[in-house]
Amino acid sequence: MTFWRSFFKQAAYSSVLQNINKKNVLLIKNFDNNGQVVNIYLSISNCINLYDLEKLCDSVGWVKRPIKKVKKAINNSFLVAHLFYYSDNQKHLIGFARATSDSSFNATIWDVVVHPSFQSKGLGKALMNQMVKYLRYSDISTITLFADPQVTKFYKHLGFIVDPDEVKGMFWYPL
Amino acid sequence: MTFWRSFFKQAAYSSVLQNINKKNVLLIKNFDNNGQVVNIYLSISNCINLYDLEKLCDSVGWVKRPIKKVKKAINNSFLVAHLFYYSDNQKHLIGFARATSDSSFNATIWDVVVHPSFQSKGLGKALMNQMVKYLRYSDISTITLFADPQVTKFYKHLGFIVDPDEVKGMFWYPL
Repeated sequence: MTFWRSFFKQAAYSSVLQNINKKNVLLIKNFDNNGQVVNIYLSISNCINLYDLEKLCDSVGWVKRPIKKVKKAINNSFLVAHLFYYSDNQKHLIGFARATSDSSFNATIWDVVVHPSFQSKGLGKALMNQMVKYLRYSDISTITLFADPQVTKFYKHLGFIVDPDEVKGMFWYPL
Repeated sequence: MTFWRSFFKQAAYSSVLQNINKKNVLLIKNFDNNGQVVNIYLSISNCINLYDLEKLCDSVGWVKRPIKKVKKAINNSFLVAHLFYYSDNQKHLIGFARATSDSSFNATIWDVVVHPSFQSKGLGKALMNQMVKYLRYSDISTITLFADPQVTKFYKHLGFIVDPDEVKGMFWYPL
């Protein structure tokens, strides 16, 4: 890599570096959620209240999962990010995503969720952009995910490509 | 889970359990490779000669990757399996696969390769069956992979499904 290419790459990721050295980062100031103005924070850490996460997943209708397995999955994810705001001195979880990875070539993003009251306001995009930035900062070249049909458009806007070179996502489920 | 369901599940995975407690397992005895009869062994461990792996990947025309990154990827994979045989007191690497995982819900299989001289003889199938068995033994329910168009048929025969419920595999690459 030439000096200038390296220089610009470093500059582009310097904000990510600053962010990951802090526990909570102010992501959006004065976010207007139907009249309720709050600051939205991003946390990149696996310190998350699992009951709050369960409630968040319930809010979008996901199937309930054993909390012990969720804890194990989070502890063994390469990257865990969540969005929240404070109100009445309480932390309110409104977004979550995580990624598995070999820490080198590939990462796969799972469980992207934004609370319905906060959807369609750019928060999912902001969360995903932070995920991609962090993974790129970690020098991971191929970022993958499996998208339900109703969200492929959302991921396309973020630069994700469906079936590039006809590479197909395949699943094996237990009988 | 009822007693009998649990009993049969345990019986089905008992061979896997026996295998993973050993370093090298005899997978196929007296394998006839165009007149050369060898025993094929499976190893589930990340102890692998990286230069042998590089040669194996070269043999199928894969793009060369920095050995340091390969080492990191292997060390951070949940499951690493390889196939080999002995000849003239030397170990010959002829197959490889690995999987990333959150150790709980999902696993993604990467870098499945069998040496061209040993292809079309059931070794890829045997290797993949061992991968799936081990992941199932680890109670991982969703096993995924990304398949090039020329190998989707191979994975279909193993029980993998393309785009189930129209879930699409998506990729993000650096610009």
